[in-house]
Amino acid sequence: MPRFFVDPRQIEDGVVRIAGEDTNHITRVLRLRPGDRITVLDGTGLEYEVVISTISEEEVTGRVVGSRQRRTEPRLKVTLVQGLPKADKMELIIQKCTEIGVARILPARTERSVVELEGGKAARRLERWRKIAVQAAEQSGRALVPAIGEVTPLAAVLNSAEFHDAMENGLGLALMPWEGEDSVDLRRALAGRLLQAPSMMGQDGQGGGPVGQGDRDVTLAQYSRRPEVAWLFIGPEGGFSAREVEMAHAAGVNTITLGPRILRTETAGFVALTLLLWEAGELDVDASEKGKST
Amino acid sequence: MPRFFVDPRQIEDGVVRIAGEDTNHITRVLRLRPGDRITVLDGTGLEYEVVISTISEEEVTGRVVGSRQRRTEPRLKVTLVQGLPKADKMELIIQKCTEIGVARILPARTERSVVELEGGKAARRLERWRKIAVQAAEQSGRALVPAIGEVTPLAAVLNSAEFHDAMENGLGLALMPWEGEDSVDLRRALAGRLLQAPSMMGQDGQGGGPVGQGDRDVTLAQYSRRPEVAWLFIGPEGGFSAREVEMAHAAGVNTITLGPRILRTETAGFVALTLLLWEAGELDVDASEKGKST
Repeated sequence: MPRFFVDPRQIEDGVVRIAGEDTNHITRVLRLRPGDRITVLDGTGLEYEVVISTISEEEVTGRVVGSRQRRTEPRLKVTLVQGLPKADKMELIIQKCTEIGVARILPARTERSVVELEGGKAARRLERWRKIAVQAAEQSGRALVPAIGEVTPLAAVLNSAEFHDAMENGLGLALMPWEGEDSVDLRRALAGRLLQAPSMMGQDGQGGGPVGQGDRDVTLAQYSRRPEVAWLFIGPEGGFSAREVEMAHAAGVNTITLGPRILRTETAGFVALTLLLWEAGELDVDASEKGKST
Repeated sequence: MPRFFVDPRQIEDGVVRIAGEDTNHITRVLRLRPGDRITVLDGTGLEYEVVISTISEEEVTGRVVGSRQRRTEPRLKVTLVQGLPKADKMELIIQKCTEIGVARILPARTERSVVELEGGKAARRLERWRKIAVQAAEQSGRALVPAIGEVTPLAAVLNSAEFHDAMENGLGLALMPWEGEDSVDLRRALAGRLLQAPSMMGQDGQGGGPVGQGDRDVTLAQYSRRPEVAWLFIGPEGGFSAREVEMAHAAGVNTITLGPRILRTETAGFVALTLLLWEAGELDVDASEKGKST
């Protein structure tokens, strides 16, 4: 069924009002008629089944005939800090990482970013990126649309109070795939911190609670601090500079290898996000079970 | 350093001869001169350091000053059987899966493939796909170029002697991400068959040999049959039909979930390939160590 995100204020007394581009999409592209059904998401995780009542040039209205909570959002909220790449790569990154399950994307200005976005151009680009995130969220059945931030200097992200606080209180995890790293991989960087994830449970996947092989090495304090947020730092085409890597290390970021093959900037993001969500138990049977609408 | 694949016959008595498009790339795009260095790969895993000697319109020659064995190829050879998608998606799939580490891509005609490729158009498309695989292999530092097969009916892949034999002798593994599957994920489908991979070793990553938690349930026969080849079956935009899923099940393919979010056809391939290579220990520190040229 076609899916549309709306502002919660567009739903009142069981009636949904859709205007703007979505109207065009419903009437001209999908050629829907009164009586047809659509799915409407309010961006808070609630999903409505809606029967179209009226269609005009400016507005489509519909009647809510059912609602349910979607559970397709990962518990681990991952922010992708993406060194600003060239051309249309950013669009591909936003689309794919939204499907895979990113919570937020912050395009970052780095020493080797060659693209300069300023003024009106930056605003138009941001608007386009946000539209791509909405479309990918609708298509992939997400309950929320990942936030796309404005282009920010890398140092500003690392120095932000939000980043500092999460790293300080143990609820944050920060990873930077870097080709200069060859002694730490994702598993070592996590070092048991996601042990409660099903991926570390018994082989049969049935074991309850934190029963990893390495649990003898993990303190209770670590269990109680299972990360809730993670940052992935991905360099632009030319990678991060030595100075940037140093700055990241100082801020508590773990550099990791993603194996012996050299990945393009956009590919490194897909791969690291996939592995992080997998190790956090967000791509397995238990996550799929939860994803069923209730 | 710029990297070029050549036919082993182009290297003789320590002299490399490069002709065709690569000549143009060396002279006009990279503007290299005699004395500059390039890396030449012979497609068997051998990598040569070469100093350019002469440059003409038709040919570039160079002197081999060093050679080494690259170990960037995964031990697990994964074939991606990709339901033929629309437009330029196939090119994206070939580029990204080559970087991640696929061994071979077989574009498959399925019930819901809407693209028809025939005659000259099919030949030109295949030529273009193979060129993309070469470029991505050069860029990502692979020692081999993944093979790209001709478009083949899905049934022909499932009924091939190669597929049958690998599934029979226990050296093959076949997975099909499918949105109708919600009780088997990648971990359950592997069911300890990749236990020797570092991903299942002790938490500290130091444990030698097969020491997974579930090893009590794994017979010696299973250890001795660690899969060497794997097939990933990915549906086109509309997915596989019920009949195709049934046919795959009958041939020994495991359907799996990739979590609660709906992935586009190209995204499903990246994600499944990434997870399979990760669980096989091909994206971690040990693999990176081996990847260093020796």
